[in-house]
This record gives sequence, structure tokens and C-alpha cells, in this order.
Amino acid sequence: MSAVPKLVSTRMPEKMSTSRSELDDLLDSQFLAHVSLVVDGEPVIIPTLFARDGDRILIHGSTGSGWLRALAAGAPACVAVTEVGGIVVARSAFESSIVYRSAVLFGVFTTAEDQVPALAVLTDHVLPGRTAEVRPSTGKELAATMALQMPIDQWSLRTSDAWPDDPPEDIAGDTWAGVVRFGPPPVTIHPDPNLRPGIPVPPSVTELSTTDH
Amino acid sequence: MSAVPKLVSTRMPEKMSTSRSELDDLLDSQFLAHVSLVVDGEPVIIPTLFARDGDRILIHGSTGSGWLRALAAGAPACVAVTEVGGIVVARSAFESSIVYRSAVLFGVFTTAEDQVPALAVLTDHVLPGRTAEVRPSTGKELAATMALQMPIDQWSLRTSDAWPDDPPEDIAGDTWAGVVRFGPPPVTIHPDPNLRPGIPVPPSVTELSTTDH
Repeated sequence: MSAVPKLVSTRMPEKMSTSRSELDDLLDSQFLAHVSLVVDGEPVIIPTLFARDGDRILIHGSTGSGWLRALAAGAPACVAVTEVGGIVVARSAFESSIVYRSAVLFGVFTTAEDQVPALAVLTDHVLPGRTAEVRPSTGKELAATMALQMPIDQWSLRTSDAWPDDPPEDIAGDTWAGVVRFGPPPVTIHPDPNLRPGIPVPPSVTELSTTDH
Repeated sequence: MSAVPKLVSTRMPEKMSTSRSELDDLLDSQFLAHVSLVVDGEPVIIPTLFARDGDRILIHGSTGSGWLRALAAGAPACVAVTEVGGIVVARSAFESSIVYRSAVLFGVFTTAEDQVPALAVLTDHVLPGRTAEVRPSTGKELAATMALQMPIDQWSLRTSDAWPDDPPEDIAGDTWAGVVRFGPPPVTIHPDPNLRPGIPVPPSVTELSTTDH
């Protein structure tokens, strides 16, 4: 693959990794993926919920969705999962960069034949344990939903996280440099106005407050 | 465009907007874009820093970058900018969804002839005012850097942010529902170990602590 992902700048301290466990760490820490396919010769990106399940990537959506149907029909796909962790503030604009982890996967999606467990993996990836807290999906709901899978086979993983790499003449100057890091966002919980009294916030939701998202 | 972005689920309370100011609000609040192009008939996604500058999207990178050169040569591009704001926790998995804003733009990039100001817009989008705090880029740095622009012309904007829309029989049950919201991530500042003593943290960095990122 000649066109490889590269964030921001020229001199970025970017590292490639071939570690599957590092890939899984990133995939398991995020639930937003950007999926690209080619439609009439032009690229289209769809942001969507995803989950890793063993050696496959799962996505889902409406059976009426054109892009999901195109993927299910075998359109080559690219899936990107990106985490921005901060900003490397160097002494020059040129040396400044972004702290990130970036996974890009390539392949073809097929229908996940195990639809009910596949959807449970997606739900529980966003809200751990939620599937056990809600009623089972109805036949009508399942008939309206498509779950697709792509094998984790062709992928690249890039990470960038280092101190500024300024040349000595810049370090000798008066310009500040460092790294700014973003922590996990704070979570606030807002009960549905239609919630009947006395129903407690479930573990799948309370756990989010203590989880890195 | 038949394949339109659609996040997560079938019944999501997704709204399309044709408001340019709502588009700009989203673009100006984010600095990570996912850019897709077609390489040898297959889609490739590159996560990259971007900035809006009036009616154009700016990106940059190394003159040695294959994907940037392909874009500069006129490859059709798709640019996605996505913000995840929380989780709609409905009483069923089916009705649950993600709170988000999603912009998808289509077009062709060209070289930004005003390279120096274009790079300043990118730098200042990430760190407001940073350009004035650092030395100018050298000729060598500018020669190694490419700045590209795409007109904001063909785009779609989708947002989803609503209370769960559960049917009456689910509302009558014992399952909790609500919305979980993610706030702006906390920022921590880490001075470069090589920083000479007595250099204060500059406004471009201190301002991040009070800004929504």
C-alpha cells in the first residue's frame, strides 16, 4: 500500500507497529470508526460504531442503508480508528505534531451470520454489560438490522508520542515547548424525562464514569 | 450521493442540516479529519490535522507523502469530521444510539499557493496564537512541506442528539434510560525536559485548558 496514513507533519516521531496486541488495545479503547468505500469511482467515508470481536471488526446498521448493502456486496473497504491523545508543542511550528494512535484496516465485509451475538458485542462494547440489562431484540428489530464483519488481516498501526525534537539552536532560545495531554472526558448522566421513579442507574452506565473513553 | 453517512442504527434520531454556520461550528471545534481517496481502485483513509479557513479546508504534510501527492494531482477526496458527544441509552439495544455531529465533504484538493499563511491557519487552529509565539519557518522547512486546500462546496451535515424514543411498552417496564454525555477532556501540560528554566507556559497552551477540545 503506497498511500499510508501519516498525521500532521514531516518530521513527526511516528512509529509503525506490527504488534497485534497494540492494535487490539487501540481498537478496544474506541467505539467510533470511519469506514470508506468507493462509490461510482469516488471515495465515501461513513463514521460508524464498531467493535472488535476476536479477529473480526463488527459494524451494523439498517438493512435499508445503501452503504452497508454496498459493503455486504463485497465493496473493498478501509476502516480507520484514531485516538488523539494530545499535542506536541515544539519550539517551531514545523516540529510540532499530534500525539495519536492510528489503526487503518483493509478488507471486505460480509454478513455476520451470528447476528444476535454480533449485535450484543456491539452493544456491550459501548456499554459493557448492557445486553443483559435490556430485553432481547424482537424479530422485527432484527429483520431491520444488518450486522457485518471484516477479518482483521491487512492493517497498519501508527503511534506518535514523544517529546519535541527541536534542534539545539531552537532549544537555546526563549520559546516554550512541551506536551499537552488530553485525559478521558468527564461523563455526565441524564435520566430520560419519561423514566419511571425508582429505577436506578444500571452498572453499564455507572461504569462509564470510571472508564477511559 | 446515494451512499450517505449514517451512524449506528436504524431508528436513530438523525437530522440532516443544510446550515453552513452549523457546519462551520463543527469544523471549527475539531482538528482531526479523516481523508479518503481511491488508490488502485481501493479506498484508503488517512487521519490528519485539518483547519477550516473561510470557504476552504486546509491540510498539510510532507512533500514526500504519497497520499498528499495523489490528492494534489487531483484524486477525488472525501473528508469526514466527526464529534461524538455521548450515548443515548434507550430501554432496548435497538433504540440506543450515539450523540454525534458528522460532517462529510467531497471535492478535489489543490496546492494552497499561499503556503505560509495556510500553514499558520493550521498551527493556530490547534494552538490559537501559536504562530506569533514561534520563529518563522525556514526555507528548508517550507520546501519540505505541502499545504493543500479543498473548497467547502459539496457537503452533508448530520447530527443526532435526542432523548431515547422508546415505545410505550418499553417505557412501562423497569429498564433505565437516559443520555450519557462526554464533556471536554481535561488537559495536562508537561514541559519539555530540555526546557530552559524561567520560560513560562505561553497563552496558546494555557488557553487549551479553558477550551473545549
